[in-house]
Amino acid sequence: MNKKMFQISFLLVFLLTVMTACGNIKSVSKSTDQKVVNSNKSITTGRVTTGVYQSLMEDGKYQTSVARGLSASRLNSNYNLTNFENGLTKISQEAFSVDQYYFREGQKISYETLQKWLSRKSATIAEGLNPEISADTEDQQKANPIIFQQLEEYDFINKDSQKLAGVSLGIALNKVYYTTNSSVEIDEQTMQAKGKEVAAEIIARVRKIDGMKDIPITIALFEQAEKEDLAGGHYFAKATSKAGSSKISKWQTVSENYVSLPVINDETNEATADGISSSFTSFKSSIQGFFPNLSGVTGIAYYQGSDLQKLTIKIETNYYSKTEITSFTQYVGKTAESAFNTKGEIEIQISSLEGEQAFLTKKSGEDTMTSHIFN
Amino acid sequence: MNKKMFQISFLLVFLLTVMTACGNIKSVSKSTDQKVVNSNKSITTGRVTTGVYQSLMEDGKYQTSVARGLSASRLNSNYNLTNFENGLTKISQEAFSVDQYYFREGQKISYETLQKWLSRKSATIAEGLNPEISADTEDQQKANPIIFQQLEEYDFINKDSQKLAGVSLGIALNKVYYTTNSSVEIDEQTMQAKGKEVAAEIIARVRKIDGMKDIPITIALFEQAEKEDLAGGHYFAKATSKAGSSKISKWQTVSENYVSLPVINDETNEATADGISSSFTSFKSSIQGFFPNLSGVTGIAYYQGSDLQKLTIKIETNYYSKTEITSFTQYVGKTAESAFNTKGEIEIQISSLEGEQAFLTKKSGEDTMTSHIFN
Repeated sequence: MNKKMFQISFLLVFLLTVMTACGNIKSVSKSTDQKVVNSNKSITTGRVTTGVYQSLMEDGKYQTSVARGLSASRLNSNYNLTNFENGLTKISQEAFSVDQYYFREGQKISYETLQKWLSRKSATIAEGLNPEISADTEDQQKANPIIFQQLEEYDFINKDSQKLAGVSLGIALNKVYYTTNSSVEIDEQTMQAKGKEVAAEIIARVRKIDGMKDIPITIALFEQAEKEDLAGGHYFAKATSKAGSSKISKWQTVSENYVSLPVINDETNEATADGISSSFTSFKSSIQGFFPNLSGVTGIAYYQGSDLQKLTIKIETNYYSKTEITSFTQYVGKTAESAFNTKGEIEIQISSLEGEQAFLTKKSGEDTMTSHIFN
Repeated sequence: MNKKMFQISFLLVFLLTVMTACGNIKSVSKSTDQKVVNSNKSITTGRVTTGVYQSLMEDGKYQTSVARGLSASRLNSNYNLTNFENGLTKISQEAFSVDQYYFREGQKISYETLQKWLSRKSATIAEGLNPEISADTEDQQKANPIIFQQLEEYDFINKDSQKLAGVSLGIALNKVYYTTNSSVEIDEQTMQAKGKEVAAEIIARVRKIDGMKDIPITIALFEQAEKEDLAGGHYFAKATSKAGSSKISKWQTVSENYVSLPVINDETNEATADGISSSFTSFKSSIQGFFPNLSGVTGIAYYQGSDLQKLTIKIETNYYSKTEITSFTQYVGKTAESAFNTKGEIEIQISSLEGEQAFLTKKSGEDTMTSHIFN
């Protein structure tokens, strides 16, 4: 396409947007599905990679969630935020086929409604789904922790009818509640029970929202990890509410977990069971032994059941020169290839005080790594 | 390789390190050249990609330059530092074949020597290659600017003899000299003349260093851009000193340039001549029009002669959610594919206040982009 053609087509550019689930390197090819423009100027983005959603645009603009910003402020770390959002995308893909539905960030539950639901119940906020307190004191807070921390909505539009045809709802629950001055841990059973109770009430309520009565809704429960947890929380249950029903089907277990590496304190988990923890320790000491000026090497292993799906490693360096960064990156790649015997995806980020310096990836199912040095 | 094999082979890990020139995505395959261990425990890193150097290690450790840190502190921006180092690698590859030589960061010119050469000439530092001043006043500084700002050494080891067989020297020259309180611009001719004079003197001096008498030396002159220049400086000349000679051959022009985008103030340059500047402006307004919350879009175009070799774009966003980042990344990729009609490489980095969020690349000679979303 030459420059002139570009400028002409520019006015019509309804460019292709895509929901990718979890950050694989994906080729953005020029073919695949075409974008669609309908009578009221809605635009579908087309699709450049199979296995991901096309997104819907209104009047040529990407629609952000009406509750945007709330997740960022209400979840207590970026690790929790990332896992909450990526997990909901994964669960959605099982319920709403990427071939049959377009994606749109949640537009049905308004910001004001969401704020009320997340509040403590009170004389002025009858809709509050968190427990009432008689006075805003430390004792009252501790005795009545806020467990229902956040709700995220994803909309799915039927490709043929161009209408809202399904919704996914993610509910984030506190395992630790931070009171004004301290914190209180919530036991697993209490948290799960509260999650299911809130989910049932939310389903009943959203059925009254215009356009949400007769569509299937997938609802999933996320356990938010404490602030200091470098791995972040995970989903533990999901359920479906059939079109027209204000009830929830049987809850199913979601078996996913993020493990922070190196594993410390004789803890046992998926990464100690399959040897990834000791491989990581070997990897770490290898690169620390061969290169000077290394300040930090940490990792997060993502499991579904006992299967390692993705290993993310962050390395902080104090390098000065491009030649060092370049050599080090290749060295890290070869070391990782030898150290980790996994079919899962590997992503390694190398940064310095000046920012991201390089990164490496191994795709799921492959043996070799690919490197990129930033300018 | 299973985990047990890994642990055994771990003790012998002489892992593969490689000099990549300028940040292409390169596959780190397991085959290609083998590493070599010689009698005095030197280790060659092996090579995982053709077209790049293998690096030499001593006692299993990567050898950093003896002058490390000096470049970072003496050059006035990361843009200048990156261009100074990447440019010297490119020029070296033309003189010393990546198939016949191993790379090592400079080990011959000592830190103390380098510091003296870079100084102003004085009663105590006779070796100083910058002009003497009678008193350290603003007037004296302005009348006698420091032009010779930095010297970088790269060593090349012959694959067969395992001995130092060539050296590249990069000389950074100030276009603007920052005095204690202000700055003074140096005219092009004065800067070039000083560069060639310093180069001749340095060649004569390094010939007296043990092991540097009988090897070919490539020497190249770099014009350091002013602090505020977002594109950074470039090399403008190179020459060779044959093995055994203390003279320099005829100077050759190095025709490379970094252009900051968008081009402002009716300036004319390579990017206005080939249309990349207007393509960039279209690209920028397209992505700003379709997505909210975009705070900055800047670019640097790297030219050799009039050929665009690489376009690097940085986009700063204020996004909250993974779904936005993901959709935006794909959108940017498709927009870039349409906007830039170039055979050159394209690299696009998308960051937020939390750091690097995603990046996209198009390899030289290809049409389609590849994306990666960071976790």
